[in-house]
Amino acid sequence: MAEGMLWLVSLGPGDAAHLTPAARQALRQAELVIGYAAYLTAIEPLLAPQQQRQPFALGEELVRAETALRAAAAGRRVALVSSGDIGVYGMAAPLLQCLERWPVAQRPAIEVVPGVSAVLAAAARLGAPLGHDWCCISLSDLLTPWSVIERRLRAAAAADFVIALFNPRSQTRTWQLATAQRLLLEQRPPGTPLAVVRAATRPDEQIERTTLAELQPERVDMLSLVLIGNSQSRWLERWLLTPRGYREEQP
Amino acid sequence: MAEGMLWLVSLGPGDAAHLTPAARQALRQAELVIGYAAYLTAIEPLLAPQQQRQPFALGEELVRAETALRAAAAGRRVALVSSGDIGVYGMAAPLLQCLERWPVAQRPAIEVVPGVSAVLAAAARLGAPLGHDWCCISLSDLLTPWSVIERRLRAAAAADFVIALFNPRSQTRTWQLATAQRLLLEQRPPGTPLAVVRAATRPDEQIERTTLAELQPERVDMLSLVLIGNSQSRWLERWLLTPRGYREEQP
Repeated sequence: MAEGMLWLVSLGPGDAAHLTPAARQALRQAELVIGYAAYLTAIEPLLAPQQQRQPFALGEELVRAETALRAAAAGRRVALVSSGDIGVYGMAAPLLQCLERWPVAQRPAIEVVPGVSAVLAAAARLGAPLGHDWCCISLSDLLTPWSVIERRLRAAAAADFVIALFNPRSQTRTWQLATAQRLLLEQRPPGTPLAVVRAATRPDEQIERTTLAELQPERVDMLSLVLIGNSQSRWLERWLLTPRGYREEQP
Repeated sequence: MAEGMLWLVSLGPGDAAHLTPAARQALRQAELVIGYAAYLTAIEPLLAPQQQRQPFALGEELVRAETALRAAAAGRRVALVSSGDIGVYGMAAPLLQCLERWPVAQRPAIEVVPGVSAVLAAAARLGAPLGHDWCCISLSDLLTPWSVIERRLRAAAAADFVIALFNPRSQTRTWQLATAQRLLLEQRPPGTPLAVVRAATRPDEQIERTTLAELQPERVDMLSLVLIGNSQSRWLERWLLTPRGYREEQP
């Protein structure tokens, strides 16, 4: 039997200029490419006709993972893809959650290819919002109790982290972002800089520069990231700056 | 006068396979490349003979930033580089801190090129440690009072974030990591998975897989990142998995 291989490939934020050579190489080597349908459409120009595509609907992450594992274990060269960095709310975790149930001897070889996470692409558009300690919090309460998410929001606000909110809002999760906004406003000033970055680096990119108090949650969708500054963050024309420390420095 | 341009270029974790085409393109377009000397040495194979190099010593970030701004404002095409992602404890924040003092009319055009942060490269080597909410904390107290850092460590531990510690230890900052370990152990079990990833993706890469209690801080250096799992994180042979939720799921 051929030696199977499974690459977990990070596709980056969208523009091919931010896809790493390692990711491109993994895609090129794969016989079978598995992923959410919209991602496969996005990388279609990078694939050759003879490479097999296996698109999946949204959700179905564990089925996607199991499919990829089985194909690689059967000797195929497989790429499982996620946008951004595959380790950040992408397919890497569900893949390992599936792998955990496999007998050790049957587990295929796996390589994780890192990439430019959506949060880094959004931050680059804004300048330096992540210039000091920061955190990522997903507002999806599908697999995580809201109480856990709420505890993290409160902790991040109290400890003055820069906060990146993933999955801020979808058609079915409509109240979480407004609740998060209210919780954060209990501990952060209303004028705290906040940016909503939608589809960073893609042709339909949109950036909204506002404040924690003035955020309009209903204008945010599932393609957006919400970035919230710390107590030192400030706007500089279109740039958002979080200084790298709390002590004054002079050049 | 020629139209100056300043690219803030993320070099990624080290291996050129993780340098994005956008970063490579920015380096190619620059007449002048400015950065910490070791980074310029690392990208030497990517530069042409006629491109000017201006290396700087460690520290001197604001001087580096001011030098880059002045050259771009004088009409030159300049690349200012940082390893990993330039927005994550890199040169983007000091650059904007300098820019803030410039009259608006004299500010040069700037573009930030995102990259694969060291934390994402380290995470990829481990599988899926960042599978749920996570934070970055720098243990450098050069510009940040230790009390602020300590508050963040306590908050991150209490709210069950996965924690990535940047700048964990240097020749002069020797006690911070052991103190962080002690603080985290007040709220996290001793068996919490912990990994020390040194020089991820580079030829001298080293990975140590251990636990929060068993970490030996004196074995960690300034090229290392320390990754600490949340309450759900677990080892799976050489992989570190943080599941993407707290609720059980079945494929």
